[in-house]
Amino acid sequence: MPVGTQATVKTLSPADLREIGAEIILSNTYHLFLRPGHELIREFGGVHGFMQWDRPVLTDSGGFQVFSLAELRKVTDEGVTFQSHIDGGAKHFITPEYAVEIQEALGADIMMAFDECIPYPATKDYALESLERTHRWAKRCRDAKKETGQALFGIVQGGMYADLRERSARTLVDFGFDGYAIGGLSVGETKPLMYEMIEKTVPHLPVDRPRYLMGVGTPEDLVEGVDRGIDMFDCVMPTRNARNGTFFTSFGKVSIRNSRYERDHGPLDPACGCYTCRTFSRAYLRHLFNAGEVLALRLGTIHNLSFYLDLMREIRKSIDEDRFKEFKKKFLEKRETAES
Amino acid sequence: MPVGTQATVKTLSPADLREIGAEIILSNTYHLFLRPGHELIREFGGVHGFMQWDRPVLTDSGGFQVFSLAELRKVTDEGVTFQSHIDGGAKHFITPEYAVEIQEALGADIMMAFDECIPYPATKDYALESLERTHRWAKRCRDAKKETGQALFGIVQGGMYADLRERSARTLVDFGFDGYAIGGLSVGETKPLMYEMIEKTVPHLPVDRPRYLMGVGTPEDLVEGVDRGIDMFDCVMPTRNARNGTFFTSFGKVSIRNSRYERDHGPLDPACGCYTCRTFSRAYLRHLFNAGEVLALRLGTIHNLSFYLDLMREIRKSIDEDRFKEFKKKFLEKRETAES
Repeated sequence: MPVGTQATVKTLSPADLREIGAEIILSNTYHLFLRPGHELIREFGGVHGFMQWDRPVLTDSGGFQVFSLAELRKVTDEGVTFQSHIDGGAKHFITPEYAVEIQEALGADIMMAFDECIPYPATKDYALESLERTHRWAKRCRDAKKETGQALFGIVQGGMYADLRERSARTLVDFGFDGYAIGGLSVGETKPLMYEMIEKTVPHLPVDRPRYLMGVGTPEDLVEGVDRGIDMFDCVMPTRNARNGTFFTSFGKVSIRNSRYERDHGPLDPACGCYTCRTFSRAYLRHLFNAGEVLALRLGTIHNLSFYLDLMREIRKSIDEDRFKEFKKKFLEKRETAES
Repeated sequence: MPVGTQATVKTLSPADLREIGAEIILSNTYHLFLRPGHELIREFGGVHGFMQWDRPVLTDSGGFQVFSLAELRKVTDEGVTFQSHIDGGAKHFITPEYAVEIQEALGADIMMAFDECIPYPATKDYALESLERTHRWAKRCRDAKKETGQALFGIVQGGMYADLRERSARTLVDFGFDGYAIGGLSVGETKPLMYEMIEKTVPHLPVDRPRYLMGVGTPEDLVEGVDRGIDMFDCVMPTRNARNGTFFTSFGKVSIRNSRYERDHGPLDPACGCYTCRTFSRAYLRHLFNAGEVLALRLGTIHNLSFYLDLMREIRKSIDEDRFKEFKKKFLEKRETAES
């Protein structure tokens, strides 16, 4: 899922998103709650009507952003009080019930339960205490949800403790959600530890519900995640990197500002069919970045998201054709050669 | 002509430019000479090949930018020495012959003679001295031009002195150019004075060659200019205003950040058929600007350029149908009502 924090996938129009084949985008409850406000967005037919995007939208619960505020927030069992990062002073209080109400107003096709995303590392005592609150909040979200036809996903937490992850998965499945996310990963831990946590969680999630790994990751992470049973991902990596002039390609990463591309007539990625790769030379893209031109950001975003979406399409195809393991092997070998 | 200073009309792709019906764009010799360099652009098939734009390109001569540098330049009859605004230290020397050579490398369909654009106000002595140099430079540009099929326009100068403007027009026509521009206007003088200078110049220019008013202007200026015999214009006004959230519409200017548009479901301009007006509400556009989203800049630019290009299309149609005077009267009345 491309990330469209403020009801826009940065630099792209809905027409651009359709052209690259995006089927669902993520938008951030925390940001839209603060600006322009969920009641305003409700008046415009939710995020869909507001930004004129007619395919599915998933909204996060705001929990991740609120807990990122560190000094600016206060947690009780009832909910979280925090100060806005925008107006600086205004205080807001979000409960699990309110998080659901906001997401209902935003018209999300998939809403996320309000959770606490703990830092890494965290003591087991704290991880457990937080997890139990997250479970109470998940239940309150489930109970607060109206019959609007919107889906609600629960979020598995538990830090880097395998037994807590298993406990979390079992508890949430017990409550019953439309899908299950794994949160609190890719927060500074090693890759093997992240993969281990996924492996300890997935077997306890039902096979007939979507499994969503939040905030992950690199192209390799996507392939490794799918191999461990993950269906959905979101990450700012393709979009944020694009705006810095760093591109994902079939032969590894490209930093387009590098002087080696100064007179390069070739496309960014010869294996890619996106508008950027069909149309422009590396030399021109480099010029746009060096000259600080806004067009650079959009052309780069079109490519990086196309790369990610193409990768997921290839993965789905390989699964359909019962050759995912082979696909994964070749993909990782190719990446290794490319990066070395 | 939309202004594409650095081989990109800021925020727009060539596909966007085609969609809004741009038939020719302007690019800046000074900027492209410094970055990425005209020899590099030559290798890529000129500005056309470099930015993948297959319709005409006009390049200015760089004179206007060089003379804007004030303290950083030194003028002799041979040419101008100046320090780059980019690398800060590097010194460059541009002669009329070199200005033509650079524009030939850039592959401009229309090249401009290298001229001195004097400040306002200027004494008549200085205006005359500068004009005579500009004329010697114009002749040298004409003589230096190779047989490449590229057109070369002369630039009428003469400050705000009607007799110098007439003298300049006559001199340049005597040299013989493919078209004639009027430079050095819209530099701080009143509108009546600008119109007077146009009126004193145009009668001395041949009717069968394009007449181009440089760096002008507002929608009213375009209509007034055409009424005085002008065929072509360029200005950063539509694009720069768009990036500031100020829009030209059929009912006057709109500052989209104004809180009156916070919950406005209507399109930016109901009379406009551009992608922005067809698709988004004023409330959404306002949100994008307030949230600092890059998409805002592109959607605004699409609209403002569409407004300008639509206006020129309406003007041409009214001339074809022999009702330009009537069109002008109605247009100015409508603007007056709208702005009051």
